[in-house]
Amino acid sequence: MPLTLTPLSSIPLIRPGDNLAGIILAELRTAHIELKDNDILVITSKIVSKVEGRLVNLTVIKPSKEAIELATRSARDTRMVELILQESREVLRVRPGTIIVEHRLGFVCANAGIDHSNVSPPLPPGEGTGPALSEVEGVRADDWVLLLPEDPDRSAAEIRHKLEAASGVRLGVMIIDSHGRAWRLGTVGMTIGLSGLPGVVDERGWQDLFGYTLQITVVGVADELAAAASLVMGQAAEATPVVHVRGFPYPLREGSLGELLRPKEQDMFR
Amino acid sequence: MPLTLTPLSSIPLIRPGDNLAGIILAELRTAHIELKDNDILVITSKIVSKVEGRLVNLTVIKPSKEAIELATRSARDTRMVELILQESREVLRVRPGTIIVEHRLGFVCANAGIDHSNVSPPLPPGEGTGPALSEVEGVRADDWVLLLPEDPDRSAAEIRHKLEAASGVRLGVMIIDSHGRAWRLGTVGMTIGLSGLPGVVDERGWQDLFGYTLQITVVGVADELAAAASLVMGQAAEATPVVHVRGFPYPLREGSLGELLRPKEQDMFR
Repeated sequence: MPLTLTPLSSIPLIRPGDNLAGIILAELRTAHIELKDNDILVITSKIVSKVEGRLVNLTVIKPSKEAIELATRSARDTRMVELILQESREVLRVRPGTIIVEHRLGFVCANAGIDHSNVSPPLPPGEGTGPALSEVEGVRADDWVLLLPEDPDRSAAEIRHKLEAASGVRLGVMIIDSHGRAWRLGTVGMTIGLSGLPGVVDERGWQDLFGYTLQITVVGVADELAAAASLVMGQAAEATPVVHVRGFPYPLREGSLGELLRPKEQDMFR
Repeated sequence: MPLTLTPLSSIPLIRPGDNLAGIILAELRTAHIELKDNDILVITSKIVSKVEGRLVNLTVIKPSKEAIELATRSARDTRMVELILQESREVLRVRPGTIIVEHRLGFVCANAGIDHSNVSPPLPPGEGTGPALSEVEGVRADDWVLLLPEDPDRSAAEIRHKLEAASGVRLGVMIIDSHGRAWRLGTVGMTIGLSGLPGVVDERGWQDLFGYTLQITVVGVADELAAAASLVMGQAAEATPVVHVRGFPYPLREGSLGELLRPKEQDMFR
């Protein structure tokens, strides 16, 4: 069975408090997609953050002493660094422009996943599409940044349960972000929250084609799907925040981000 | 347009010297897939290695002094460690069971990508499906390991040019392997060679939805596709060494693995 990823591309600009499940259901209808058992919806973290009101205006941030020191070392805005520290458990590396941290959600990433692009001042709830940023006087796009969702596993579960209630089928929902890699160039889509699908599939002990027992094969199936969906979403003006997936080749089950995080005691590169 | 990944699942066991392009063309016919412009074929490194005769019998390997020392530290077979060293430029980390290296091809991976599973003694060329391993007297599967292809970019280009000559359309070809990650659990599919498609797409300078210029967005599109194809291939007995891709959302162009490798001077984690 083929794996098919369909971008849902006409989703409107998202406001705080929007009903994301309802927006996705409407968009699926527009795209003539009827949800079936084992379908998965992959959602970019950006729109989940916007619904959850995770936009922060830098002008209200008071940088700590630690942030000011780190801002010098990283050549970054002190207020941005303050937010990075607030969103992190530990700083792993610092280079001009980049602070590699363990995010409070447990994964290692650059700049705590705080995003400066595709961020506009928060739109007032429920008033239709607001004016373009360039038309709003005295508002600087550069002042606004977007934090990752508070608890992406929980957000994924909430969206999933609404979609399941509306459709009557068994689904998976994933929230993804784009991360850089230690030794490779280019960002790739990475899972930051999931509900209703496996994070990893443990194939240790299975037999391969020749009856040789596989010794260590834990497959990061959710991250493989995150990368696939990210490819379909694109990065810039394409505005494809949701991807519908059919043909995921593993049985759905309950799952969580924690499955994908390497325990600290196994970490060779901290 | 949806991205569709179709597994080609009835590819026969591969022998040294087999014509992989011919085998893929036959399998596409069986699957009723007619190649179109911009289609991509993703191939697991295992069958490319087998065609190229990269099976090695451990019993003929003479471990060096360095390999014997490293075998003690890593609790691995001295002959396997000798091969890992031969296939690598530099050892980055050593832990029981795992040697993290910079492979001679330039990427960082565990155990130089040398594979012990889905490996059988080499089948004699051109004699139909050989006997099952368990039926061959005196042959131990454990003695055979599989090295990565000699030059996967070149292998991808050769397969691509044969497929293009036979089909008359413009294609991309990728060779992938499963790699672990520094901070996350579970292997994911990773590009080790490519021809005819971009490794990364540089979106620096593009404008996002709000007219804000994206500062740093180099997207690892080939690795995103590698992960997607790996998800469809599975790991164990599923025997899906080739995946056909339609709907890759970027223009095809010449490309190479080098695009995806972070230069040493940017490496924070060596």
